[in-house]
Order: sequence, then C-alpha cells, then structure tokens
Amino acid sequence: MIQNTISGFSKLSKTKKIDWLLNTCFDNNDTAKKVVTQYWNSDEKLQKLHDEFIENTITNFYLPLGVAPNFLVNENLYTIPMAIEESSVVAAASKAAKFWFERGGFKAEVISTTKIGQVHFTFSGSKTDLQSYFKTIKPQLISDAYHITKNMNRRGGGILDIELRDKTEELDNYYQLHATFETLDAMGANFINSCLEQFAETFKAHAKTHKVTNVNIVMSILSNYVPQCLVRAEVRCKITDLKDKDIPDPITFAENFKQAVSIAEVEPHRAVTHNKGIMNGIDAVVLATGNDFRAVEAGVHAYAAKDGKYSSLTHCNIDNDIFCFWLEIPLAVGTVGGLTSLHPLVKFALQMLGNPSAKDLMKIVAVAGLAQNFAALKSLTTSGIQQGHMKMHLMNILNQFKANDEEKKALITYFKTNTVTHSAVVEAIEKLRS
Amino acid sequence: MIQNTISGFSKLSKTKKIDWLLNTCFDNNDTAKKVVTQYWNSDEKLQKLHDEFIENTITNFYLPLGVAPNFLVNENLYTIPMAIEESSVVAAASKAAKFWFERGGFKAEVISTTKIGQVHFTFSGSKTDLQSYFKTIKPQLISDAYHITKNMNRRGGGILDIELRDKTEELDNYYQLHATFETLDAMGANFINSCLEQFAETFKAHAKTHKVTNVNIVMSILSNYVPQCLVRAEVRCKITDLKDKDIPDPITFAENFKQAVSIAEVEPHRAVTHNKGIMNGIDAVVLATGNDFRAVEAGVHAYAAKDGKYSSLTHCNIDNDIFCFWLEIPLAVGTVGGLTSLHPLVKFALQMLGNPSAKDLMKIVAVAGLAQNFAALKSLTTSGIQQGHMKMHLMNILNQFKANDEEKKALITYFKTNTVTHSAVVEAIEKLRS
Repeated sequence: MIQNTISGFSKLSKTKKIDWLLNTCFDNNDTAKKVVTQYWNSDEKLQKLHDEFIENTITNFYLPLGVAPNFLVNENLYTIPMAIEESSVVAAASKAAKFWFERGGFKAEVISTTKIGQVHFTFSGSKTDLQSYFKTIKPQLISDAYHITKNMNRRGGGILDIELRDKTEELDNYYQLHATFETLDAMGANFINSCLEQFAETFKAHAKTHKVTNVNIVMSILSNYVPQCLVRAEVRCKITDLKDKDIPDPITFAENFKQAVSIAEVEPHRAVTHNKGIMNGIDAVVLATGNDFRAVEAGVHAYAAKDGKYSSLTHCNIDNDIFCFWLEIPLAVGTVGGLTSLHPLVKFALQMLGNPSAKDLMKIVAVAGLAQNFAALKSLTTSGIQQGHMKMHLMNILNQFKANDEEKKALITYFKTNTVTHSAVVEAIEKLRS
Repeated sequence: MIQNTISGFSKLSKTKKIDWLLNTCFDNNDTAKKVVTQYWNSDEKLQKLHDEFIENTITNFYLPLGVAPNFLVNENLYTIPMAIEESSVVAAASKAAKFWFERGGFKAEVISTTKIGQVHFTFSGSKTDLQSYFKTIKPQLISDAYHITKNMNRRGGGILDIELRDKTEELDNYYQLHATFETLDAMGANFINSCLEQFAETFKAHAKTHKVTNVNIVMSILSNYVPQCLVRAEVRCKITDLKDKDIPDPITFAENFKQAVSIAEVEPHRAVTHNKGIMNGIDAVVLATGNDFRAVEAGVHAYAAKDGKYSSLTHCNIDNDIFCFWLEIPLAVGTVGGLTSLHPLVKFALQMLGNPSAKDLMKIVAVAGLAQNFAALKSLTTSGIQQGHMKMHLMNILNQFKANDEEKKALITYFKTNTVTHSAVVEAIEKLRS
C-alpha cells in the first residue's frame, strides 16, 4: 500500500480527486478509471445533484431498487419500494405479502409520535438554586426558540415539554434539559438539534444572573432512542387458514412458528439474528424513502434490549385457535425534509406509496419488517433458510463465473435437485466446462 | 391509492413489471417512467448484473460513493471508501483522519474471529440419554458436513467445536447444538447455515436408533451476535498535542470530551445516538465493501447492551496527561464471497484498500467508526453539531429549491455569518428572488 497523504483534498474537483485516487491506490490503472466512470449518470445535472449529497463523491454506488407488490395494510393496497443488496429479501417480502393478502392483510397502528432531545450539562452548585432557575427560565427557553419553531408550530407540532433531569446519581454533577418534540411529517433531527442548541444558549446566558454559576454545557443533541415514537403491526387468522402449499399441516406449523419466536424471546444469540431479519425489511424501505437507517437501527435494537436482556421484537400468540403475530418498534421517520424531496428516486418511492404522512410511513415500514420476519421464520421452521437463499444466491455465483445463458439454464436445472453450496456450484461449473 | 393485486409478478420481465407499476401507482405518468429509466446504466450487460442481485429490480438506487483519505492505521496509509447518503459523514471522517495522522494515527487489533451458529431443537426425554447421544454422534456431525467444509478446512478454517446446550431453564424442552466456526476471509453466513442444516439432518436421522425419540428441530441458523469476533481501535496522544485551530485549550477540550463519553456510558438515551454516530462511519465502509450492514448493526448494538443496560461502544481515558480514546466492537465481515467479487464497485473499494484480509477490513471498519465518533464528539463539545451539519445540509436545501450557481454563491456567503435552519434558508432564497 504505497500512498501519500494529501492536504486540501476536499477542495479538489471531482476529476482531480479521482486522478489522485487512481494514482495513489491503483497505479493509474485504466480499468479502475473505467469502473468509476461507468457508473456516472449521463445527465450531468442529475449527476451533480447526486455528487453534492455528500463530500468527496467519486461515483454512484448502486443498490438495487426492487418492489414488493400486494401489501394490504389497513385495507389499503401498497407496492412497497425496497433498496437492498441482499438476495431473497424482496422475494420473501412479496411472498409474505401475498400470503397475508389472502388472509385479511396486515393491521398497523401508530401508538405514539414523541421525539426526544437533550442538553447535557454539568453543574456543581445548589440543586435547589438550579431547580428554581429552571422554573424561571423555562418559558424563555421556549420563546427564544420561536424563530426555529414558528413554522412547525403553525402546522401543529413543536416543543412539547422541557424537563430538568437530575442525573447526579449516574455521574457527578450531571444534569439534563430533557425535551420532547412533535415533528409531524419530518424526522426532525435538524429541527430538534437547532432547538436544543438555542435552549443551551439561553440557559447558559442567563444562569449567572440567577445565582447559578458554573453551568458547563457538554453537548446538545437529539436522541435516536425514541421509545415514545412507537408503531405496532400485526397479522392474525384462524390456525386452519394458515394452510398453504408449503404448510400442509397448519397446527404443527403454528406450534413450531410460535416456538421459534419464543426462542428468540429468551435467547439473545437467536434474538439478534431474528431482529436482523426484521431489519432487512425495515432498512430496505427506510433507505428507499430517504430516511436514515443508522438512526432507525440504533433506536430499534436499543428498544430490543430495554428490559435488560436483548430480546425479540416480534411476538406470537395462539389463543382460541387464532394465530396472531405482531411487531412493536420505535420508528422516527420523515416524509418531508432531508433527502425526501431531493433524491428523485426517493420522491418516486414516496409517490409509489401514495405520498404517505410520516405516520403512514411508520405503518408501512413496520409491516415490511413483520412480513420479512414471517417469511424468514416460515422458511426456517419448514424447508430451512438455505434452500431459498442459496437458489437466489446461485444466480450471483453463476454471474461471478460469467456463466453464459446456456450454462445458467443447465446449472439452474441441475440445482433444482442438488444442494447449493458455493463449492458445489463452482465444481458444477468446472465440470460443465471441462 | 387505487391499486390492484397481482399474481406471478416476479415472473414478468423488468419492462412489464415497470409498466404494471406505472399503471397502478402512477396513472401511467411519463415523468415517473423517465425517473426510473434515467437511472439505468447504458451498459446493458452491467445493468443486467445489477438487476440480478435481488428480485423485482426496477432500477439502481444511487448512494453516493465518497472517499476519505489520510487514514493512518498501524502505520499503513488508507483512503477509505464510504457509501452513504448523509451529508457531513465523509467530511467528518476525513477531518478526523487528518487530525490523527498528525498525532501518530490509529492503532487497531483483532482480538478474536470466532463465529457462531445454532441448531435449535426441543426434546422432552431423558437429559442423560440426550447427552450420551450427543457424545456419540458429535464426530459424525462433523464428518457428515465434510462436503461443505473441505475447502474451508484446506485453507485453515472450518468447524471449531459443537456443544450441546441445555436451555430448558429458559424454555421448556429447549436445547441447542451451539457450534463455533472460523471462516477466514469469508463472512461465512452461507457456509455456517449449510453446516448447521447438515448437523440438524445428521442429528435427527440417528436419534431414534440411540433411544432419543421426539427430537424436534425448530431451526438451524447462524448468529449475528458475535462477541467472540472482536476488534479494537484506538487513538492516543499527549493532551497538549490535541491543540489545534479548533482546540485552543486542549486541557478543557479533553475534559469535556471525556465527560461526553462518560455521559454516553451512563445514559442510554445518549448512548443510542452516540453509537449511531459510530455506525455512520462503520456502515458506510461495510456497504462500500459489499458487506451486510444489518448483520453488523444487530451484532454491534446487542454488544452495546450486553451488560444489561445499553451503553457507549467507545471509551475515553486520561492518565498521566495522555488522552486515550478507543472502540471495541464485534464485527463479522468478509472480503471474499457474497457481493465482494460480483459488484464492480465493491471490487474497486476493496482494491482501494489494497485487497485486505477480513481481519484487516475489521480494523479499517473499526477505525472508520472511531474516527466518526471522534469527529462528532469534537463538534458536539466545541461548536455544536448543527454548525457543520447545517452548512453541509445548506447545499441540499439550495438544490431542492433549484438555486442557480449565482444564488448558491450569494447564500453560502450569507450563511457564513447566519444560523442555518431550514426555514432561514427558505426565507433567504425567497428574499433573494423577490
């Protein structure tokens, strides 16, 4: 790895950046240059738009955008957009959608939409003085932020409350201004952070004149942990109605399925993978609709650990011969702001969903997660995960070995009755070609 | 939302799928069609490759691929590829890289590389009989999987061990075959799952002849919780050496920085966002190198909750005037298999990193996470997060309102001395245009 350090890289033009990169990491390799440029869009204006989303952009990383039709959610039919690189996720979602379409569809409801932000500070003086100062200054904290909140207020959102929280038992001298917000159709990160920084400024500025000295603002930032911004999605039907070509014996199926969920409830090693499967569905929709999947992931997994032991996000119940399977997760997503009106494919994805409100999007995303988990558990407890997954992955391996159409056809037929493993496919290709 | 349900959608050609979609969700809107097709690659063969990664692909979702130079990791200099839609992540990484390049760079080490998979089953008979059967069958579990493991064995990896675990205290009749694996440069999901399904088959097939009846295999699947596949990254320097144009007073900076980390250690609301920031860096590299970010996310966040309370993944220590900041996370990533040799930009990204081993990639990914967290905490504890973030986001808002170059120039100048909020930018654009 012979490379040089560089100053002022971000100020170079895109072409100069790529030249430097090719020179230092690729020995000026022509193939490498072709790879980068072949992904550029021929529409220069469109390309520029995408280049400016972040810094030091050199090209467009392609994630496949797939669609999963037949999602019936609260009597509305959706085709769900999914941006994901993992084979079988869209196929699994589509199958689950069709399965439940024929059994009454998904029900989803938003339980709450409150978001959270905090000003973290230290203070070593009298707690009584601090509490008294907080009471006095609280109205001004809100009024000083009016230039930030006025538009949100007009639409019915804004700051819900600000509390002073004493955290000195956790850490010496540590307090918070713990604020709650309603951000309507916006995810609200910028809005909340701007409010919080204003709170911090106001809080600090007037402290001394209220005998509260030595307030040290450590930081002001929203929380991606949003256990009061909750959505629930559910499917239910008579056990006998679960009968299907893959489910000849619905009673055994339901019992095994419930057992698989129970295992994920009690065993963290399984819960992590179980929830990972849920997130396959969730992140694919979150990405396609221009939301921040890191924020969603962090909030969801922390919620899975809220009772002290990492556990399943879905639950299953069998009562009076009714099979019920549901998901409850925190989800802070937006349908305005951020990338939603900027990335043409995000706009397209939102249009595909009928330009949903943030609440409607919460429901759709939760349903995608539940559908994914249903499909995964159905495979796992019947044929096993590898059969479906490796059939999908077979095409990837064939492409990797640049199999032509004739070879593909022969090998797909061969692997209809043989176990797909990477080495088995490689051997079969080699045999075919020898 | 007037839509129709559809059967056999996955079997339609891409064009037919899009026609159906445009017809049902877009009233056959020409603009929508243009949006989808403008993202197609003009190289039909390349496009077909990307289409076949998943099912029902309609187009390519663009994520910007950016690069962050100047990462010194264990004396090797890297330019790190990052696929991410969030503005300021690459800029923050680059700044942190430069900052630490001048202070000795990052140190990283792989602590362990063991992966885990489990066959989950129920059994209601004698525990002694089960244990005795397991001892007898264990060698055959391994030998029956030889057709799957032979290539991995040859390279020095394979099955490490299989244990019988009694989980009946957690759930009635619940047991596991808990297996550990070394998968070398592969992430190993397909390998592990194929082994596990073979274990299950062997285990079930011979149970009855060993007086072990009623073994019910619930499922066989790898675990994304990999606390024995650990990597650590660290930076350290004399406190006085932290001095910088943004850090005029390094002692106060170091104290505030440490305080911010301590807060994330004790307060889950903050920890979630703190770790989300780490994942901004991690996922961007994980995506660019063709790895599965949902798997990484799930494992990392569950690790953050391992002690019963969700907590920070980074830690800070000040000892003898030395500032030390480090990250320890589980990370199962691969540099062979999956998309790594299939997606041309993934190949490119791996080449950019000098075609690293999985262990080297673990180090690079961990360093990207640590760098991201350092940059975030540096901003948060000095100028606040919004200043940098909104400057970046300013360009997005300007593009949303289709500001021309002249308008952009004027507004960038204006917002050098004014607070960027969404409404402030909108007002400024309107004022400029009125």
